[in-house]
Amino acid sequence: LSASLAELTRNAVHVLPEGELERKLELGRPLRVKLGIDVTAPDITLGNGIPLQRMRAFQDGGHIGVLIVGDYTARIGDPSGASAERPIIAPEEIDRMAARFFESAYTIIDPERTEVRYNGEWLGKVDFAEVLRLTRAVTVARLLERDDFAKRFAAHQAISVSELLYPLMQAYDSVAVEADVELGGTDQLYNLLTGRDVMEAYGLEPQVVLTTPLIASWDGTKMSGSKGNYIALVEDPDEQFGKTMRLPDEMLPDYYRLVMEQNPPTGDPLEAKLALARFIVARAHGAGAAAAAEEHFTRVVREHQAPDQVPEAPLPPGDPIHVPALLVEHFGLGSTSEARRLIGQGGVKVDGEALTDLDVPRATLAGALVQAGKRRFIRFSRA
Amino acid sequence: LSASLAELTRNAVHVLPEGELERKLELGRPLRVKLGIDVTAPDITLGNGIPLQRMRAFQDGGHIGVLIVGDYTARIGDPSGASAERPIIAPEEIDRMAARFFESAYTIIDPERTEVRYNGEWLGKVDFAEVLRLTRAVTVARLLERDDFAKRFAAHQAISVSELLYPLMQAYDSVAVEADVELGGTDQLYNLLTGRDVMEAYGLEPQVVLTTPLIASWDGTKMSGSKGNYIALVEDPDEQFGKTMRLPDEMLPDYYRLVMEQNPPTGDPLEAKLALARFIVARAHGAGAAAAAEEHFTRVVREHQAPDQVPEAPLPPGDPIHVPALLVEHFGLGSTSEARRLIGQGGVKVDGEALTDLDVPRATLAGALVQAGKRRFIRFSRA
Repeated sequence: LSASLAELTRNAVHVLPEGELERKLELGRPLRVKLGIDVTAPDITLGNGIPLQRMRAFQDGGHIGVLIVGDYTARIGDPSGASAERPIIAPEEIDRMAARFFESAYTIIDPERTEVRYNGEWLGKVDFAEVLRLTRAVTVARLLERDDFAKRFAAHQAISVSELLYPLMQAYDSVAVEADVELGGTDQLYNLLTGRDVMEAYGLEPQVVLTTPLIASWDGTKMSGSKGNYIALVEDPDEQFGKTMRLPDEMLPDYYRLVMEQNPPTGDPLEAKLALARFIVARAHGAGAAAAAEEHFTRVVREHQAPDQVPEAPLPPGDPIHVPALLVEHFGLGSTSEARRLIGQGGVKVDGEALTDLDVPRATLAGALVQAGKRRFIRFSRA
Repeated sequence: LSASLAELTRNAVHVLPEGELERKLELGRPLRVKLGIDVTAPDITLGNGIPLQRMRAFQDGGHIGVLIVGDYTARIGDPSGASAERPIIAPEEIDRMAARFFESAYTIIDPERTEVRYNGEWLGKVDFAEVLRLTRAVTVARLLERDDFAKRFAAHQAISVSELLYPLMQAYDSVAVEADVELGGTDQLYNLLTGRDVMEAYGLEPQVVLTTPLIASWDGTKMSGSKGNYIALVEDPDEQFGKTMRLPDEMLPDYYRLVMEQNPPTGDPLEAKLALARFIVARAHGAGAAAAAEEHFTRVVREHQAPDQVPEAPLPPGDPIHVPALLVEHFGLGSTSEARRLIGQGGVKVDGEALTDLDVPRATLAGALVQAGKRRFIRFSRA
């Protein structure tokens, strides 16, 4: 067991209570480092990677990562909605989503030192008496301290009693796996502290709470799988590369610190951003994929050139040709009005020249390279 | 089905929502009129009788009384205490306490039109998913509206989350028995209204809420089985009669209205109080017992005379005799200092004369009738 405290707590916002992690590290046994994962999230983001990076640091120090799959919650649906019927997620679908999570997570953590647990294993056995025992451990006021609850309560917005039970389920997970440390984003602070209260009520030594920063996306708000403003831990290399290059320069120091765990860059921001993009793609797909993605980015996006492999398509009959219909048919646009809008914005180019008319002589399009948006190209036949 | 609305709602404080009871009565089927009972209460009081009187009125109108025995709660213990171990009440003890409740309740309600249900029947089957479904129906703010919670929350006193679940268990009982009406004291108003919310969330027609007044005891506070300031529905006739006669005159109108369901008395308060005491004993034990209790009361308490059957006891040796020791030995007083206090208050009489000395000549006590307090008499031997 060897790990520097500085490495384990790098970038951490809270390590609570003070001195307790040091004490647990001195126990001389592998610590159980818990992270709960939301299998219902539409995707796994760079932001989700930040606590996983801490789990990896613990694993490198000889400790055990414990991933909790919230299958019980997923199976019964999220009761925060007011509708009477809950969306039930089938077990196979939960397995599929969990597998996707692991694929992403294992680009960061060590599968050999990871224990995966499904919380249905213990939550499925909880009866009303056990819920009462569990809920006795925590006061209403304590749960309402949580930022989001506090704001809603103050604003007289409805908080259903069931919502108070969610942090308690998470806390009960800590009891079940006997967590020594729980990791989470700073937005999880109160949930993680609740885990301490509940573990104590169950006669266990409470876990250490270690929170990591949230990371902002290019739109300045928290990167979130459900908001769509994210770079996924694992997705198409060109997408990862391109999205990373869209980050504003002023965000580079945060990304260097939180994602690369390096000092902020000092030289040319463009070069720094390319290095970040290379890091992200290489972590997910390897160095070869990173080089290819960079090449693609440089050619297509940065130099506004066509990619080397352009699909070909036959020109439809008629002269002149109505370009909006052509775009719907060959470029996958949703409607001719969407196509007209794109043309109006100068987003459609024929051999590099922005198109201004909707109807174009057949001769202009025959054999031409047509570009719609930044990255979609088709070369039309000469016939 | 025949019952006047005035009779069903006599003395009611709330009948909610307005017009709903009338509507349900017009359905032309027997209504299910629920009352939850606390089998852990040390005794069943006249106050507990008030909602039972309403249940009787419904039964006389052809409806069904549904008594809910909270065996589930009793079996798992009350989690409001902070101690880790809950007092578990054995099933036989719960049965014994429930039987005692029925003995009292059946002096008022009609056993032939009463359905008894134990809530362990359904609460024992509730899993975590069902708790979440149940708790989704109610907001935290709604539960905190309850007087006692509101005060404690405002005073920053701890309210455990488990305490919020108790009203929801009671509400779930209403779902399980498909209550049309729930009865309760005014202190149950919010719990009963919560039952409406939960029934609605479960797709049932919400119950009508009918609350009855609490009744004050001779000390001016709510009559309560756990405070000891009560007249029990069923207890020793002489006790019932004597306690009733201790009520202050100004409470008579309330007792006439709530217990006897009669207009306030107009004549001599003593006669009015005797009629009340007769009513209470006769309801519990029959008219004969009421007459005997009155005779006992009149002779012993009112006329300060000895009862006709006075036990005899030998005088201890010595002269003079130390009366405090005598009182401890023969009158069951706890200590000689308690005995001295009683003598000091003029509470010990020898042949009707209040004793002032602690040591009394043997001749004074030989063959004398000694009275300690209001009702304890012993005649000492002449030897």
